[in-house]
Amino acid sequence: MTQAHALREDDLIGAIRAIAERGASRAYVGIGDDAAVWQPSRSHRSVITTDALIEDVHFSHAWMSWREIGARAMAANLSDIAAMGARPVVATVALGIAPGVAFEDLLELYVGLTDTASQANCTIVGGDLTRAPAVTIAITVVGDVRATHLKLRSGAKTGDVFACTGPLGAARAGLQSLRGEVALEGTLGDEAQRAFRVPQARCREGVWLGASANVHAMMDISDGLSTDLHRLCERSGVGALVRDVPVSPSAVAAARVLGDDPQQYALAGGEDFELLVAVAPRAFGHLASRFRSHFGRALTRIGVACEERALRVIIGGNERELARSGWDHFAQ
Amino acid sequence: MTQAHALREDDLIGAIRAIAERGASRAYVGIGDDAAVWQPSRSHRSVITTDALIEDVHFSHAWMSWREIGARAMAANLSDIAAMGARPVVATVALGIAPGVAFEDLLELYVGLTDTASQANCTIVGGDLTRAPAVTIAITVVGDVRATHLKLRSGAKTGDVFACTGPLGAARAGLQSLRGEVALEGTLGDEAQRAFRVPQARCREGVWLGASANVHAMMDISDGLSTDLHRLCERSGVGALVRDVPVSPSAVAAARVLGDDPQQYALAGGEDFELLVAVAPRAFGHLASRFRSHFGRALTRIGVACEERALRVIIGGNERELARSGWDHFAQ
Repeated sequence: MTQAHALREDDLIGAIRAIAERGASRAYVGIGDDAAVWQPSRSHRSVITTDALIEDVHFSHAWMSWREIGARAMAANLSDIAAMGARPVVATVALGIAPGVAFEDLLELYVGLTDTASQANCTIVGGDLTRAPAVTIAITVVGDVRATHLKLRSGAKTGDVFACTGPLGAARAGLQSLRGEVALEGTLGDEAQRAFRVPQARCREGVWLGASANVHAMMDISDGLSTDLHRLCERSGVGALVRDVPVSPSAVAAARVLGDDPQQYALAGGEDFELLVAVAPRAFGHLASRFRSHFGRALTRIGVACEERALRVIIGGNERELARSGWDHFAQ
Repeated sequence: MTQAHALREDDLIGAIRAIAERGASRAYVGIGDDAAVWQPSRSHRSVITTDALIEDVHFSHAWMSWREIGARAMAANLSDIAAMGARPVVATVALGIAPGVAFEDLLELYVGLTDTASQANCTIVGGDLTRAPAVTIAITVVGDVRATHLKLRSGAKTGDVFACTGPLGAARAGLQSLRGEVALEGTLGDEAQRAFRVPQARCREGVWLGASANVHAMMDISDGLSTDLHRLCERSGVGALVRDVPVSPSAVAAARVLGDDPQQYALAGGEDFELLVAVAPRAFGHLASRFRSHFGRALTRIGVACEERALRVIIGGNERELARSGWDHFAQ
């Protein structure tokens, strides 16, 4: 008997997908993308995503308020909807309540969930409450998208520009700062901790990018760019050459303190919730310029899709293999 | 500080609903019905429900196979969709995996989930896997329903006939039998254990009853008739007089062995997943007759909706108050 914990998350997902797809009919994108898609009526596509957070696995009340825990949990799910090019509509929350949790704390958690959902015009319409050995927050979000605006992981083509909607690594630096593993001064420390505690899902950006026919593939960077880019490339049947990944200032500072490479920080650090897109090369310049004027932030080129199905990265002038160094929920 | 466990589940749901409804807009039925409803397009209604099961709170692998645990978890959610008059379409499963769970057991769990969903033409389209201190199964199911076929808890009118789609109490007798608290002979024991381990959601019945304009309100009986009828009556602003609740033969046998009242078994025992309906009194006879010829089972009259907002029950010729004696997840 193999213990499930000894397996890589992607292997487990693969085996489960094989079982679930036996019963598949109506859905046309199943397990393995940011969200699943189905067609409730002719004119219409719906997307659905689900995500569970467990106390002391994904979060600790020692580092964050209950309101922040709620906000972060909801943002992670909204990010998956954004990554499909969809707008979130409704959410449900199944909450497992551990012994000793105060009523007031539960309500604070719900304020965090609700406020974050509301900012994205998403309504929490249902839920479930149960006793549990650890606080468990299982969120499902359903979104809407026009069929032509739907973006999958599988659409990247050789020659496409890979780009992301913001600098990476801040959430990892924030987690280290919260854990006391690195001391960051002034605003850098605040920026890092905030990136981890109240991450912002790129909801408006996702809908905007989804509306462009030149965006061929999209996903959110939740488990670290190196891991997530592997997933996108596998689905699309392409490779990648990556360079000049934008690193957030707080991650640069944390890497310096710890003697790490800032690029590695950005490649391996998860939970930044920026969007990763594959864009038609001729259209990239114009799209990035429109993106900047619309959102006041950069859509930064980080590499190119290659025919050879390998992932390589250029760091300090040296090209090497891009290992999956991001977060694997079962690798620890 | 009040510990959440010291509160009644309905109080907690009420407080959470108040927070969640601050952000409400598109949804027109929120937390508190079997499922929540929204309108993705003009012609169309979608319903969504979510439910979490935790090892050693809701199930124990000591009594059931992993496949049965999966089947039961999915049935509970399908039942909520049926209770709205809707047909299930897609489901997601967020799975928390405890240390020591074998890969093969996880796949068995998924077979149970998938087979049960498939039987109801529902596809598992997405999921999430995470480590957790206890096995946690959080399921969300989305269904479709025509606006005119949607049935809420709030539609019962004074004079309506309350009826249910099958005898009650078998799941409770089954749980006691599995726990070794009562020995039931032969087929009665099998029937009881089966009722607990692989309950059948009334999916076809729910859609059929939803299509009748004479069915004014519907919900599923998951926490025990006495508790669930209180909820329906509160929502509808009516009272009830209950008598002659159909008791499953295995529950009658278990009650006899333990010296309990069989009616109390049927009133308090949860997880039977039969549907409870409020039907226009003039239409009931014809509807029940059509129901029997369509499904080969009885739609049994169990009482009447009253103007006076109290719940009363006649047992052995004596009328008394119907207490909430069903399952409250936080009362223990």
